[in-house]
Amino acid sequence: IASKLPNVGTTIFTKMSALAAEKGAINLSQGFPDFPADTRLLERASQALLQGNNQYSPMTGLPILRDAIGDLIARHYDRKVDPVNEITVTSGASEAIFDAISSLVHPGDEVLLFDPAYDLYEPAVQLAGGVCKRVVLKAPAFRPDWTEVDTLVSDKTRLVLINTPHNPTGTCWQNEDLEQLWQIISTRDIHVLSDEVYEFIHFQTKSVSVHQHELLRERSVIVSSFGKSFHLTGWKVGYVVAPSALTRELRKVHQFVTFCTATPFQQAIAEHLNEVPEASAELAGFYQQKRDVLRQALEGSRFTLLPCEGTYFQLLDYSAISDLDDVAFCEHLIEQVGVAAIPVSVFYQNPPTGQKLIRLCFAKDESTLIVAAQQLAQL
Amino acid sequence: IASKLPNVGTTIFTKMSALAAEKGAINLSQGFPDFPADTRLLERASQALLQGNNQYSPMTGLPILRDAIGDLIARHYDRKVDPVNEITVTSGASEAIFDAISSLVHPGDEVLLFDPAYDLYEPAVQLAGGVCKRVVLKAPAFRPDWTEVDTLVSDKTRLVLINTPHNPTGTCWQNEDLEQLWQIISTRDIHVLSDEVYEFIHFQTKSVSVHQHELLRERSVIVSSFGKSFHLTGWKVGYVVAPSALTRELRKVHQFVTFCTATPFQQAIAEHLNEVPEASAELAGFYQQKRDVLRQALEGSRFTLLPCEGTYFQLLDYSAISDLDDVAFCEHLIEQVGVAAIPVSVFYQNPPTGQKLIRLCFAKDESTLIVAAQQLAQL
Ligand SMILES: CSCCC(=O)C(=O)O
Ligand SMILES: CSCCC(=O)C(=O)O
Repeated sequence: IASKLPNVGTTIFTKMSALAAEKGAINLSQGFPDFPADTRLLERASQALLQGNNQYSPMTGLPILRDAIGDLIARHYDRKVDPVNEITVTSGASEAIFDAISSLVHPGDEVLLFDPAYDLYEPAVQLAGGVCKRVVLKAPAFRPDWTEVDTLVSDKTRLVLINTPHNPTGTCWQNEDLEQLWQIISTRDIHVLSDEVYEFIHFQTKSVSVHQHELLRERSVIVSSFGKSFHLTGWKVGYVVAPSALTRELRKVHQFVTFCTATPFQQAIAEHLNEVPEASAELAGFYQQKRDVLRQALEGSRFTLLPCEGTYFQLLDYSAISDLDDVAFCEHLIEQVGVAAIPVSVFYQNPPTGQKLIRLCFAKDESTLIVAAQQLAQL
Repeated sequence: IASKLPNVGTTIFTKMSALAAEKGAINLSQGFPDFPADTRLLERASQALLQGNNQYSPMTGLPILRDAIGDLIARHYDRKVDPVNEITVTSGASEAIFDAISSLVHPGDEVLLFDPAYDLYEPAVQLAGGVCKRVVLKAPAFRPDWTEVDTLVSDKTRLVLINTPHNPTGTCWQNEDLEQLWQIISTRDIHVLSDEVYEFIHFQTKSVSVHQHELLRERSVIVSSFGKSFHLTGWKVGYVVAPSALTRELRKVHQFVTFCTATPFQQAIAEHLNEVPEASAELAGFYQQKRDVLRQALEGSRFTLLPCEGTYFQLLDYSAISDLDDVAFCEHLIEQVGVAAIPVSVFYQNPPTGQKLIRLCFAKDESTLIVAAQQLAQL
């Protein structure tokens, strides 16, 4: 069989989690919480499925959930979106991103993305027959070079993929970034896909969402995830906000990809959003505490801590410790130190030579973070 | 925005369910049960999410569920499949079908399908850049004309889509059908996608699955759905069985479309399959009873009942009642008779002129079926 995605293998997240389990290492690789979600939310899900509706939801998502997402966006961004024509519930943010790329990218179109990037953007672009152009973000600040972006934009460019707060670097875009992006695309026929799954996990006031840029958002598909915001990555409930014309195209794909998303989980999340509206606003403080515990515990070590403005990922530079490349170093960490991390090079198409960075996930109990840090600090 | 699926609108299922709700009609249109699933399964799901794992499952599905699916296939078809390399859990059968088509169809490839057909095959083929060729199945028997199939196969044909038990006609393929198909494709580079979501819902012993054809199954991707088998269309848990080379390609797409499927539901279904292994075998009797109740209640009416060998759909010919086309007749039924049905013409690319067929879903409580039939019998 001729492969349509010849270069795709098992993702690094799958590999590292499996290896961590096999070797009994503390798993700070794949990004998922090791603590339970809010019991009230779990109870609601239990009620929803025991007493409620276990059949198809509407293709666009349960109305009660789309309304609650509308309220969430109003609370956080002071923006009014139309739950009927601008919000769609998807089976995780992954499906949302896939649907958006599939519906917007035509064969031959160019798509601009920033490296390092999460692993699912490029395969979706490839399947749609598009071509990725990459702007490399340079350590330690990882800020875009807007002159380079402008140079890379061509007549064929149709989509720019952005991600803030950013996985894996933990950087957050500021209003200037959105403004620069807007200046570049405003006169052209270009849309934006903004992956904002860590939207509520940032530790500084300057972090912005595309929801807050009145012009840019009219050209943008904004993706988020209750898996990240409510510590339930295994429920696979995400959502997309986009102007109605873009939503219409995206739904054409969505209705044939999964049609709809687990109904009882939609019901439970909607009720939780309505009854505990402060939950999303409390998320940043919750994770800032974890970040600080991890950073403090690593402070005396030979790792250099890079800034972490958002997400639940912390980058470490290990140049002072080892000459190994980052994949080999991560294997060494699992086997010899008992800690699993993600090599940052896998997020690049062309990893910068000599860059020695690993990513730790701090969505873990504090005691786990402290033990992992102690083991790492022995190096 | 240039639309990639210009002809796609809201599906007939969404439209009819919405109209039924609006008009207070009995909804026998969209295919979903109106009765609860087995309480033991719901309890297991509740336990799984209250105490268990709410984070990502492995991309391929929970090992315990893949093992249980292997056992299920062994029980029903006396076939041994490898849960590690040949079984993949997906977010509903829809995602499985989408993944299979996306991974197997290259731009310019031809895909053969049989009309009437469920609505999600063609858009997936279109997005992959493929072209559909259609063999029309003729009422009332809806059996394939194999000479026509042979004529339609060309050097460009890469995939044949089949569906047995068949939605919307309720027909089941027999061994001769699979053998004829095998004769046509065996000497060519053609794969088969077999949509078998109603695999356990058939009312005659001759119905066959591709699992039972030793040669054909080595070229086939077989799709099924716990939504259909366990009355839980809103859980969105499906699965795919395919030889390892095909599975490898399909998973490349799956891992970027949804990555994985709701973990607590996977856990609950696995436990249920292991603890109540007779459930799937009891399904046919359960639905045969409902079919017979509906058919009996319609017997004195002016509708002609077509044969129903499988699925939970019954076709009715209304030629004796009305000259309206089937879409108009279904609207009339909702408004004037208080029953929602699906016009069969929407399953065709070119509906046969003068064909007057509607589809009723009998996955409903018997009392509901009887009331609906009484209302229809007044026509
Ligand atoms: C779906 S596995 C990857 C999880 C994740 O977001 C990450 O680790 O970056
Ligand atoms: C996903 S809505 C369609 C449900 C169904 O299988 C049908 O009614 O044919």
